[in-house]
Amino acid sequence: MTPDRVALSYKDRHYTYRELRDRVNRLARALDVRRGDRVAFLGANQPALVETLFAAGLLGAVFVPLNARLAGPELRFILEDAEPALLVLGEERDGEGLPGRHLRAADYEALLASGSPEPVDEPVSQDDVCLIMYTSGTTGRPKGAMLTHANLTWNTVNLLVDVPLGHDEVALIGAPLFHIAAMGQALIPTVLKGGRAVLEPSFDVGRAFDLIESERVTLIAGVPTMFQFLAQSPRWAGADLSSLRHLLCGGAPVPEPLIQAYQERGLTFMQGYGMTETAPGALFLGADRAAAKAGTAGVPCFFSDVRLVAPDGSPAAPGRPGELYVQGPNVMPGYWRRPEESAEVLSADGWFRSGDVGVADEDGYVRISDRVKDMIISGGENIYPAEVESALYEHGAVAECAVIGVPDEKWGEVGKALVVLKPGSAESAEELLKHLDGRLARFKVPKYLEFVAELPKNAAGKLLKAPLRKLHGKG
Amino acid sequence: MTPDRVALSYKDRHYTYRELRDRVNRLARALDVRRGDRVAFLGANQPALVETLFAAGLLGAVFVPLNARLAGPELRFILEDAEPALLVLGEERDGEGLPGRHLRAADYEALLASGSPEPVDEPVSQDDVCLIMYTSGTTGRPKGAMLTHANLTWNTVNLLVDVPLGHDEVALIGAPLFHIAAMGQALIPTVLKGGRAVLEPSFDVGRAFDLIESERVTLIAGVPTMFQFLAQSPRWAGADLSSLRHLLCGGAPVPEPLIQAYQERGLTFMQGYGMTETAPGALFLGADRAAAKAGTAGVPCFFSDVRLVAPDGSPAAPGRPGELYVQGPNVMPGYWRRPEESAEVLSADGWFRSGDVGVADEDGYVRISDRVKDMIISGGENIYPAEVESALYEHGAVAECAVIGVPDEKWGEVGKALVVLKPGSAESAEELLKHLDGRLARFKVPKYLEFVAELPKNAAGKLLKAPLRKLHGKG
Repeated sequence: MTPDRVALSYKDRHYTYRELRDRVNRLARALDVRRGDRVAFLGANQPALVETLFAAGLLGAVFVPLNARLAGPELRFILEDAEPALLVLGEERDGEGLPGRHLRAADYEALLASGSPEPVDEPVSQDDVCLIMYTSGTTGRPKGAMLTHANLTWNTVNLLVDVPLGHDEVALIGAPLFHIAAMGQALIPTVLKGGRAVLEPSFDVGRAFDLIESERVTLIAGVPTMFQFLAQSPRWAGADLSSLRHLLCGGAPVPEPLIQAYQERGLTFMQGYGMTETAPGALFLGADRAAAKAGTAGVPCFFSDVRLVAPDGSPAAPGRPGELYVQGPNVMPGYWRRPEESAEVLSADGWFRSGDVGVADEDGYVRISDRVKDMIISGGENIYPAEVESALYEHGAVAECAVIGVPDEKWGEVGKALVVLKPGSAESAEELLKHLDGRLARFKVPKYLEFVAELPKNAAGKLLKAPLRKLHGKG
Repeated sequence: MTPDRVALSYKDRHYTYRELRDRVNRLARALDVRRGDRVAFLGANQPALVETLFAAGLLGAVFVPLNARLAGPELRFILEDAEPALLVLGEERDGEGLPGRHLRAADYEALLASGSPEPVDEPVSQDDVCLIMYTSGTTGRPKGAMLTHANLTWNTVNLLVDVPLGHDEVALIGAPLFHIAAMGQALIPTVLKGGRAVLEPSFDVGRAFDLIESERVTLIAGVPTMFQFLAQSPRWAGADLSSLRHLLCGGAPVPEPLIQAYQERGLTFMQGYGMTETAPGALFLGADRAAAKAGTAGVPCFFSDVRLVAPDGSPAAPGRPGELYVQGPNVMPGYWRRPEESAEVLSADGWFRSGDVGVADEDGYVRISDRVKDMIISGGENIYPAEVESALYEHGAVAECAVIGVPDEKWGEVGKALVVLKPGSAESAEELLKHLDGRLARFKVPKYLEFVAELPKNAAGKLLKAPLRKLHGKG
């Protein structure tokens, strides 16, 4: 019980646990939302996001954090799929063109103040859905992964087993909370332990250094790109990093030089592998083996099981690739209103099929070697080529296209489109990229677009990406 | 994954996690025990106890740790109730007079070596019963509290929320593992985190100081008596206690002077309140509020609920006494083969009725004010007066008797018997106490026995212990 300690900091606002509890109770009582209703939030990290998450949780309602980087058509698709009873808008959003009932930031404080701070006493079970996070996929159609209170709780338990979190953690939350990593590996564990979450609307290197020093930040969870930005900053050498204790890096393997740059400052990455569907932790590499097992994503989290399955269905031997399956109390019950797509990835006995390929060493440490799903990871955001290709095909001049990931020093990977134009067409690369603008989130628009005469296919006419990557896999 | 770190130390034996895993798999394969079978263990803390616990768990069998301090008739009663498929004997026990199949310590290593170290792959669910711990009660007949894997897991999760346990903990386990405190608050969390459990067959002050210094002990869980012994030892002043981080004290409130003695050495107690039936944690007082809220047992553990119920069934207001009820995933499903006694203490919606009375302050911190169950706590062992009285009544000279607890500097409380002899009888106190010898565990035999002319009763003839305590409540 830490009622007088600060729970949330955001710019010049600081809420103690007592204040946060009162605000969340007020909000829950003021929201006209019932058990099972969805409550969406559109915006960057800010207190209203966290308060809406907790208020929805108290009511047995379902929180739907929207990726604030998505374009209008993408957001509309998700909102029509989730059918929220209410869309709460962050202070920087006006909600124009988006369907349904809105709560604008200008009206938020008045609404909250109208509710009573009496504790809400709705019976909510661990098996109730707590949030739905949308993720794209091979089909290019976003699907909402349902995560129960139990899923999020067990992910936190797994983290507490692997990381010695104290009551005095100060987490710098610069990665967006609409992604599971910041939500599951930073916000929830920090608040559970009674620590402080410092919210940043976006990851700004200068602000990050300011906050690390002034707030004595102890924990940062992020993608390699974020940590790279810090290490490449002119402030890196002179910064006081003595408060940092836990650096959690996920979403992509941490490059060796980055590990070394932090080691030289006495800092060790903990790494992991996870997905929205597993809330997210599946594999974890603790600080004690970080150096010895660099390049791997570690071993299965304590209360979860991971197995590697060879193409013939048998267990993959050490050193041999296998598709990664995850089982445990952190695995989602399914995708929202998608029974077929849920059945494709979830077996009857609860094994989730990740679509990713890993190779275990003799000690059981798993290196993620390939993505069956053909996914590109760019600065921590997942890009599904099928979705980009489908938007390209909407342009009349495109006869055929394929999108692959190519290495990028800043973002890890970026997209590259290979396009075969229809006979007689003479569109430029710029025109095609402009066509994608507004249809897709900016991070999904390929950095490169090249025209080719034809795309490699197998005898059955199926596009072969491996030779494409070999030929065009440079930036 | 910490295969090469030491998991268990006992005298001059040290087992790494790899060795412990292999030994437990071997034992599980060698034990002729099936899912649901009970496996009892009789003995002090030693590796075989821990290995049998884990082996039974792997097989879906139920571990029954017997209180090694019990007398023959008490042990026989429990063994006839639990009907174990096997009784594993500690190295100091011969099992004479005890029913059922025995595994003697002399045969233990050979049996274990005969099993294969291949991992056992029995499907065990969190809802399977993991262990049965016997506890006496108002009826004087011991009952087996069934604890599931989930009960023990959630107790550990509650502990991890309240205590920042690291991977490098070294727990000195001198309190007996046949009690839930040492099992739930020391052994299981330490091993879950990958730390080291140093087992001691009994709590010896000199050995404790030796081990704290040589093993760099970080965690001790115990009763106030244990901590008192340390503070009163001539070695206290000169001992190197710099490795100690977590002192968990439960079973009875920690006396103020003891808190101060430890504070002067820079050490802070965490305190709690719990019962076998709640695996055990229900209330917890963390180090940060230990001084401000001394004398209380803290607030409800994070994933558990506690409420105080006034005699009329309404919630007790702050400052007013109420019976303590506990709900949560750590609450036992019931007593082994005792549906009626289970129904008496467990409501349909999962509230466990503790029988103890507490008073909450304005901040929700609960002070345990009285024991409805009339229990005496002596050096961490619970003594139920009804059980002692019933043994006294077996002596032909006893007309009436009552047992109360009286303060004791060394043990916290000890038992005192008030006896009305039958007319014409002239037995001495020594003769009556000798009669109890062998019938009851030594710790249950009253330290004092006095003869009285009559016992106070109400109009209905019910014995009134309050006036007795007022009159005779001194040692």
